[in-house]
Amino acid sequence: MEFAEATAVTPDPSTPGTYRGAVAPGWDIAGNANGGYLLSIAARAMTHASGRPDPVTLTAHYLSPGKPGPLRIETELVKAGKRFGAVRALMRGPEGEDKAVLAVLGTFGDLDPSASADSPTSMHSPPPDLPPLEECVPMRRVAMSDESGPPDFMHNIHLALHPDDAGFMAGERSGIARMRGWFSLRHDQTIDTIGLLTAVDSFPPTIFNLGLPVGWVPTVELTAHVRARPAPGALRCAFTTRFVTGGFLEEDGEVWDSTGTLVAQSRQLALLPRA
Amino acid sequence: MEFAEATAVTPDPSTPGTYRGAVAPGWDIAGNANGGYLLSIAARAMTHASGRPDPVTLTAHYLSPGKPGPLRIETELVKAGKRFGAVRALMRGPEGEDKAVLAVLGTFGDLDPSASADSPTSMHSPPPDLPPLEECVPMRRVAMSDESGPPDFMHNIHLALHPDDAGFMAGERSGIARMRGWFSLRHDQTIDTIGLLTAVDSFPPTIFNLGLPVGWVPTVELTAHVRARPAPGALRCAFTTRFVTGGFLEEDGEVWDSTGTLVAQSRQLALLPRA
Repeated sequence: MEFAEATAVTPDPSTPGTYRGAVAPGWDIAGNANGGYLLSIAARAMTHASGRPDPVTLTAHYLSPGKPGPLRIETELVKAGKRFGAVRALMRGPEGEDKAVLAVLGTFGDLDPSASADSPTSMHSPPPDLPPLEECVPMRRVAMSDESGPPDFMHNIHLALHPDDAGFMAGERSGIARMRGWFSLRHDQTIDTIGLLTAVDSFPPTIFNLGLPVGWVPTVELTAHVRARPAPGALRCAFTTRFVTGGFLEEDGEVWDSTGTLVAQSRQLALLPRA
Repeated sequence: MEFAEATAVTPDPSTPGTYRGAVAPGWDIAGNANGGYLLSIAARAMTHASGRPDPVTLTAHYLSPGKPGPLRIETELVKAGKRFGAVRALMRGPEGEDKAVLAVLGTFGDLDPSASADSPTSMHSPPPDLPPLEECVPMRRVAMSDESGPPDFMHNIHLALHPDDAGFMAGERSGIARMRGWFSLRHDQTIDTIGLLTAVDSFPPTIFNLGLPVGWVPTVELTAHVRARPAPGALRCAFTTRFVTGGFLEEDGEVWDSTGTLVAQSRQLALLPRA
């Protein structure tokens, strides 16, 4: 199933502002949905509710795991301005259980490049330094550790890690809390601004490269700023952590497209695995 | 009026989950409230609604200016977990008009240091390099440009800027999109975790140090992660911008306390002033 279909939502005609979607078959990871993928589904509904084409800034708070199956997204337009619309949403599922999975707050607008063609640009940091895709280390083989299981989320995306950051897969950690690599969708499907929301949460945790306990790193909150619509091609991504304190860590992400344009920034607050 | 009083809220007994507060007299800036101060008021209500002592991560989307006078904050507890509670809120005001000012989403918890005393720490970036407070440049005189007006927000806080970043006040811009300095409340009032939310939005925009048009830099969205309760004393702050593109810029903040502990991180998405 393509990404667009796997994140599709339909308005529920009986309840204005409510949408139906699903964690699609084969898009979970061992029974749980990736946080960025869940956010993409919510963003489809919220973008529609906003009446604008693109997410500009979105924040999700992760309330409970997203299980495969139907989801309901309740949206509320809290501001309809001239340039932007603000929407808040609650994603619930699986249906019947009605458990809150995700709370999201977002501002939506139009990122058509012609609208900002005259806007001054000032860049104080270069794109991530990455070898060509074919010299990077594919991630899939590790995430697919249970080769006998059905194809899952990691079968639908393609990650290729910077060789300097990929050693953790062989137990050789770089000591730098960083993950850099290329992100693309299977069969090089086009990545839209909603696809960027999946990209910012798809890489292995930065701290896998530190001498800390390795385990599940639950996201408390993820914020993504979408800066531009990506050009076709794999995305150049980098994630770094500067501060691990008090059981928390931040993970800062940058996503650049194939033309060298910054297309998204992200930051998440996550929990350190318990020792 | 002290900060605690200027951000106080009271539950509205007639409507569960709703709180009353105000942009207090003398806490506006020429008729508008500072975005961080508004977030502090909302956070008081949300913290109460969560039943937890501290904000952990909070995101506000700015919908319309906060004017002096009464505010209403409608909260909804979307998750009450073992360790955290998640709350969303809408701030409206002034009363009567009922205009949405702020939409907020937050996760709350207990940042008592004893709870995380055994947690591993890994710091990959030093605190901001700042001269002692008395060698920094007080901000107040510039913000109080209308000396004949009544005392305002900038009278209630004290900012002292790094001399290298303060030249913009005399028309000498550093060329680096950065603002570093000390933050304190007037009369050295104690700063709690809610006070940190004011600190992260009180400094002049980073881009005042670039060769870009200077003007109002409206915040679209502000996210703050609170990492620890601050120790008494002035806060060491740094704000930087790396990417000005498409009419947007991010501003990343760090706040450290007098003992050298990272107490907050922030990021906001703001709009470039129109040329």
